[in-house]
Amino acid sequence: MERNLLLKIQYDGSAYHGWQVQENARSVQGVFQEALKQVLHTQPDIKACSRTDTGVHAREFCLSMKLSHNIPPERLLGALNHFLPPDIAVLSCEEVPLDFHARYSCCGKRYVYEIWNNPIRSPFLHGRALHYYHHIDEKKLNEAAQHFLGAHDFTSFCTLDNRDMGDFTRTVTESSVTREGDMVRFTVAADGFLYNMVRIMTGTLLAVQQGRFVPEDIPKIIEGKNRKLAGPTAPACGLYLEKVFYKPQI
Amino acid sequence: MERNLLLKIQYDGSAYHGWQVQENARSVQGVFQEALKQVLHTQPDIKACSRTDTGVHAREFCLSMKLSHNIPPERLLGALNHFLPPDIAVLSCEEVPLDFHARYSCCGKRYVYEIWNNPIRSPFLHGRALHYYHHIDEKKLNEAAQHFLGAHDFTSFCTLDNRDMGDFTRTVTESSVTREGDMVRFTVAADGFLYNMVRIMTGTLLAVQQGRFVPEDIPKIIEGKNRKLAGPTAPACGLYLEKVFYKPQI
Repeated sequence: MERNLLLKIQYDGSAYHGWQVQENARSVQGVFQEALKQVLHTQPDIKACSRTDTGVHAREFCLSMKLSHNIPPERLLGALNHFLPPDIAVLSCEEVPLDFHARYSCCGKRYVYEIWNNPIRSPFLHGRALHYYHHIDEKKLNEAAQHFLGAHDFTSFCTLDNRDMGDFTRTVTESSVTREGDMVRFTVAADGFLYNMVRIMTGTLLAVQQGRFVPEDIPKIIEGKNRKLAGPTAPACGLYLEKVFYKPQI
Repeated sequence: MERNLLLKIQYDGSAYHGWQVQENARSVQGVFQEALKQVLHTQPDIKACSRTDTGVHAREFCLSMKLSHNIPPERLLGALNHFLPPDIAVLSCEEVPLDFHARYSCCGKRYVYEIWNNPIRSPFLHGRALHYYHHIDEKKLNEAAQHFLGAHDFTSFCTLDNRDMGDFTRTVTESSVTREGDMVRFTVAADGFLYNMVRIMTGTLLAVQQGRFVPEDIPKIIEGKNRKLAGPTAPACGLYLEKVFYKPQI
């Protein structure tokens, strides 16, 4: 009998060319499929909540797959964690209705961009956070981040490529900049994200820090619908997919 | 004119065979000396607060060196951080009296042993914490840890080798086990440490967790002055040199 499984995984993306399988590059999906093959001796079709770029991390990344194999979910979890490398872990594995799809059933995601804000780099955060030398005024950046809230056409915050077609309107439901010691975090949740959206938002907030923009410029940058108006794309290393939202299962 | 400099450094020890220079092995000291050579074009004699084993980390490791080069301390700090790899950082660099010696002037050190206590490993803590599957009763382990406090002969908590001669009495001034979410930490400070002392203390605390000992066994293990009475040596990956104590400079 065909079953549908939802797996939540976590990974340090430093050593991977993103999620998506690519030729001649090590991807999280590729390594995950290898582990699956060792456990199930078959290659189920995996549906993922999204792609992530090279070097981007995930504290929660969701994928679903249909399979006829009758392995209990908790057994599959243990076996996959045995075969996966230490920088990838399966957090949970559960049976879900057959019409569940990790990407199409997703109703939102939360990302966090982490910035190590100290003149001295941290040896423990190499590839895990952006190192920013000058002191960040997190209150000012938080003020700027408030302007992302709501439904907007985020064309200015999107690297155009084939994957983003049609409507560029996304609804941002959380947007804040906070500090915990020397760690500054930009947290943003939305019903969906355009390509590079969080990294361009972060680069724009850092341009506010550098005095290139004031917080009140954000609405104008959004309205302009032009990528050239926003700040640069921040490096991948600070970005974490934090949470994937699904409607409660009935 | 000869000057004496105190440098505080931080490193992720995962990629190193400890601090000490060794033939045919990459050590923190070796890499540090290479960077020094590039900056100063000379090879000062470095005095270090201690050695660390392969895979052990340092949030604060101290070293002193005498040099006649007149480079300002803050310039040396910046230049070293430029030439050092990302998993080593110089936190501070200051001039100290000529009689200061990173090892002989040291009056104590604090270590922290970190344990990721969750059935699922963390991809972000590989090589950075011990992964312990079963739930740890941190209150019970803390009770056991209290018995380390005070001046004791710690022969039972020492891997005998050439470096530990003479008196095995050390005075433990801090010893506690705490939990923060899934992270369990054993913190221990003393006027000095024997070889593998913190790792054997940790292994013994984990043996308490496993029911091999009760907290009240610790005094008997200490009194027995026999390595075989204590628990195993915990892996290096969870160990951090946290702080090095020096008498205030007059």
